[in-house]
Amino acid sequence: MKENISRRLYALRTFMSDRKLAAFIIPSTDPHCGEYVPEHWETRKWITGFTGSAGTAVITLDKAGLWTDSRYFLQAAEQLKESGITLFKEKQPDTPSIAEWLRLTLKKGDRIGIDGTVNSIAKVEELQQCIQSNGLQIIASDDPFSLIWEDRPVIPRNPVFIHSLQYAGVSCTEKIKQIRLFLRKEAADSILLSALDEIAWTLNLRGNDVHCNPVFISYLLITGTNSTLFIYKEKITPEIRDYLAACNVEIAPYDSINDALLRHSGERIIMPPSTNYALYLTASSASHIKRMQSPVALMKAIKNKTEINGFRQAMKRDGIAMVKFLKWLKESVGKTAVTEMGIDRKLLELRSKQPLFRGISFDTIAGYGAHGAIVHYEATPETDAALADSGFLLLDSGAQYEDGTTDITRTIALGKLTQEQKRDYTLVLKGFIALSRIEFPHGTCGTQLDVLARQYMWAEGINYGHGTGHGVGHFLNVHEGPHQIRMNYMETPLLPGMTVTNEPGIYKDSRYGIRTENTMLVVFSRKTEFGQFYRFEPLTICPIDKTAVIPEMLSAEEIVWLDTYHSNVYEQLAPFLSPDEQEWLRHATLPLSDSNN
Amino acid sequence: MKENISRRLYALRTFMSDRKLAAFIIPSTDPHCGEYVPEHWETRKWITGFTGSAGTAVITLDKAGLWTDSRYFLQAAEQLKESGITLFKEKQPDTPSIAEWLRLTLKKGDRIGIDGTVNSIAKVEELQQCIQSNGLQIIASDDPFSLIWEDRPVIPRNPVFIHSLQYAGVSCTEKIKQIRLFLRKEAADSILLSALDEIAWTLNLRGNDVHCNPVFISYLLITGTNSTLFIYKEKITPEIRDYLAACNVEIAPYDSINDALLRHSGERIIMPPSTNYALYLTASSASHIKRMQSPVALMKAIKNKTEINGFRQAMKRDGIAMVKFLKWLKESVGKTAVTEMGIDRKLLELRSKQPLFRGISFDTIAGYGAHGAIVHYEATPETDAALADSGFLLLDSGAQYEDGTTDITRTIALGKLTQEQKRDYTLVLKGFIALSRIEFPHGTCGTQLDVLARQYMWAEGINYGHGTGHGVGHFLNVHEGPHQIRMNYMETPLLPGMTVTNEPGIYKDSRYGIRTENTMLVVFSRKTEFGQFYRFEPLTICPIDKTAVIPEMLSAEEIVWLDTYHSNVYEQLAPFLSPDEQEWLRHATLPLSDSNN
Repeated sequence: MKENISRRLYALRTFMSDRKLAAFIIPSTDPHCGEYVPEHWETRKWITGFTGSAGTAVITLDKAGLWTDSRYFLQAAEQLKESGITLFKEKQPDTPSIAEWLRLTLKKGDRIGIDGTVNSIAKVEELQQCIQSNGLQIIASDDPFSLIWEDRPVIPRNPVFIHSLQYAGVSCTEKIKQIRLFLRKEAADSILLSALDEIAWTLNLRGNDVHCNPVFISYLLITGTNSTLFIYKEKITPEIRDYLAACNVEIAPYDSINDALLRHSGERIIMPPSTNYALYLTASSASHIKRMQSPVALMKAIKNKTEINGFRQAMKRDGIAMVKFLKWLKESVGKTAVTEMGIDRKLLELRSKQPLFRGISFDTIAGYGAHGAIVHYEATPETDAALADSGFLLLDSGAQYEDGTTDITRTIALGKLTQEQKRDYTLVLKGFIALSRIEFPHGTCGTQLDVLARQYMWAEGINYGHGTGHGVGHFLNVHEGPHQIRMNYMETPLLPGMTVTNEPGIYKDSRYGIRTENTMLVVFSRKTEFGQFYRFEPLTICPIDKTAVIPEMLSAEEIVWLDTYHSNVYEQLAPFLSPDEQEWLRHATLPLSDSNN
Repeated sequence: MKENISRRLYALRTFMSDRKLAAFIIPSTDPHCGEYVPEHWETRKWITGFTGSAGTAVITLDKAGLWTDSRYFLQAAEQLKESGITLFKEKQPDTPSIAEWLRLTLKKGDRIGIDGTVNSIAKVEELQQCIQSNGLQIIASDDPFSLIWEDRPVIPRNPVFIHSLQYAGVSCTEKIKQIRLFLRKEAADSILLSALDEIAWTLNLRGNDVHCNPVFISYLLITGTNSTLFIYKEKITPEIRDYLAACNVEIAPYDSINDALLRHSGERIIMPPSTNYALYLTASSASHIKRMQSPVALMKAIKNKTEINGFRQAMKRDGIAMVKFLKWLKESVGKTAVTEMGIDRKLLELRSKQPLFRGISFDTIAGYGAHGAIVHYEATPETDAALADSGFLLLDSGAQYEDGTTDITRTIALGKLTQEQKRDYTLVLKGFIALSRIEFPHGTCGTQLDVLARQYMWAEGINYGHGTGHGVGHFLNVHEGPHQIRMNYMETPLLPGMTVTNEPGIYKDSRYGIRTENTMLVVFSRKTEFGQFYRFEPLTICPIDKTAVIPEMLSAEEIVWLDTYHSNVYEQLAPFLSPDEQEWLRHATLPLSDSNN
């Protein structure tokens, strides 16, 4: 495999030499700036051998580097071994940024190549700002991988399907009407949507082009009077053709988007900063580009009543599968052979029996013991660990149901724990409860609430390197914005109807990992002389393992929260369980003071 | 007075008509973008009659508006009565921004006048962005007030004086060396400092030009080899002339700054976004302007060891004055006549007896009862309230000492309190303690910590409309950046050596106000496998009134914090007090469980 890598690097460098490029930047994304991308665009993975979801490779004629975040430090170090590619750990004090490294490595006048179609406007301009005073320039070249990647997977042509109004709640026609109101308000002629989940949401269509995300490759251009979907014709069944016609949405070939943009010359086109740079270059040559956040991101983030009701139903079904799974796990470990990959299979089996199940929402993270410390661990046949009756299993998983998407993490005590493990588990729980309980005024954004989840572990000198919460799509991407709960600034305030996860964790290298995660819903709380206040309602319905808790570390209010949550879990799930399962759940959800830990 | 206002508006409108201006914007600041400004630049106050420190007036040919923040809603409403000027309450849902209002009020092609010398680059460009697509344009005109304000105060010519190295800790020469290192790092030729506290800090000079802030009107231009102070020659004594010569700082007339900038043509000049727009227009016509935050703001914010030691000494002296005052107050109220203005005089008398006292650091806020709800209340002969033996006195005050600046708020129970008052007092205290106790990792900024101070009142549907904390200068401005603790985003992280206040509050309109404030210092806490952690050390040394606390609302940890703080207050101050005062303080600082509340 390492030989593969050097052959691939050689091919890319030949391409670079031909075009007089001193460096080439390969991001992890695609023309739609997605987080998960179809295999066709997994070029960074192909050229480096690093399989994590996030990372950027920079190749010069004699050097190669990969930048990735703390979730992937261990995995990347392992996968880059002997590849000749240097790992750069993002946000570490001694790590240069890509721009800094380029400034140090290249010389004045050097040309840096990118494929404009897989880089967002925002990314390119940020880089441009950081390097231009050093005499470096960015060149949007053709796509090297279409030449050097011989067995490159094709762009998927899977058929799209209708997301029933019964679950979507608002029709495509109504959504387009809302978008047109926005165009009028902004005095714009049109908007180009290229984020796949925004297109799927607007049209109430879904697809199978991207792993775990039910979206389909396309662009959607909406003007004051017309809507055009740019998509491969193989993806359009007669039913979809009729449906789109009824919605007054025209169909055009995927590759004709550039020509279409050129035809709109002189117009005012809204392009979100996540639009790819190649489209921006095309459009800005002919039109006035209004760069602003897509209004669809916020419309999509605020769930309607039908979607919220769907989420509640989906969470119940997911909770039933989880309880069956947890009972099986607790009863099997130490008696029969259970491995990380076996867990994944068992969970999939239980979830897939639930009505409206349409697949997993992301690759299951089932990390036993030291594997739990690898934040985005995915078990492989080489790493697959057998579970013993001690320590923690960190299990982060989720499903796509037609009426909602789930994302849940539980850390399960498989037997004997150390005092340190219990303390850390309780610190995570305290942060999780503090964020769950907070009531906050209108205008509050996630950055302001993030500390609530971290404060107790900070007091012990502990922290985690990932965000605390992200939006969750409705039968769509498990990660969605524009709001988030994290330390870096996200200005979008939390508004009623938004879903957001709550997932603090503690990761001790080579020892263990702990994370507890619910998906929550922002709801109205009260209106006072000081304004409107909101709070979170937990959507996830699944017991939290009490056997790892040190009860003395919890305040009375925290215990009340946990007991109330558990009593609600029992009430909601028990009617759908067998007597055995009911008894197991009853015990798992007993008030903390009644528990025999 | 209202007749005055209409005469003044008429004169301004004549000026506007002559120059074909459809609107004129009058901010509260001066050519140095200061918060407190010399009377010469109090043009917004003069034209509207509103005396608050923050606010912007916008005058059209037939309308007039004043925008101010929640601290001043009550005061502005009162002072604008019958002036014909409309009050716009900032950040309220129905209030248009100035740009929105201008877009609604003016028509395409209209010219909006500003005095470029009293508007920062950042402000002008922000406004430009918001109105340009509506066909409105901004015109930097001459200063109307130099024509229409007959008895306008002159720009102050007070002499400057040396801030002794014994208190400053680092010499002017060393500071300029640091700034030059920064110029080299940024490949810039020079930097223009116009923030008065940055100039005073750099030169280790102080002045008397601005109320409460020991700064002096000037500009400072530093190149790789030269430093020039632009200042009125009357301000320079022979001693200062020699001192500056020894520091290799040249002197030039204040008004020659424009010519000097033009002489630096073709150079790369660093200008912070707070530089005034007129200077920017001048300089950018000839040179390349590098716009970035001034490095001096951060250098100044991180106090050196000498400054920190000075702060500790100053806080002790301030605490002694405060304890004498509190004892006097508690013993006088209900027995002798005490009014809000009398309090201010008493406090000044006690503080001014302390060594190194150089004046107050801001106008005392002594608000009894309902006056406490006016966030920046200043008692006047008309409002001066007599204190009775019930309810709260909110007292926010501070002093300038040569070795440090203080800023402290205590809310004092003067007698009987309602249950609601005690609950609100305890909610404020819980937030204050939560922020005081937090330990946080390197990289944390104030925005992330703000919620700690608010969380308990939020849970009761209460909030406050001001920031939670600001930096405090060293014998300089009581408000300084670049860090802050507040809900809106401030990206500068909190670093060891920074001072910052902690001042949550609850304000109930027409009823009462509560605020508790300490000045704190960021200090190292520990280094773990998860990185470097910091915490706050309280600098302010003064008891917090326990008689208003509901002890059952405090957790064991909160009680420990309060008791430990109080035991330290007693230990530090008792040696400097009379036996009577010692006994009073001993009682005031008893552990909460021992107190007879």
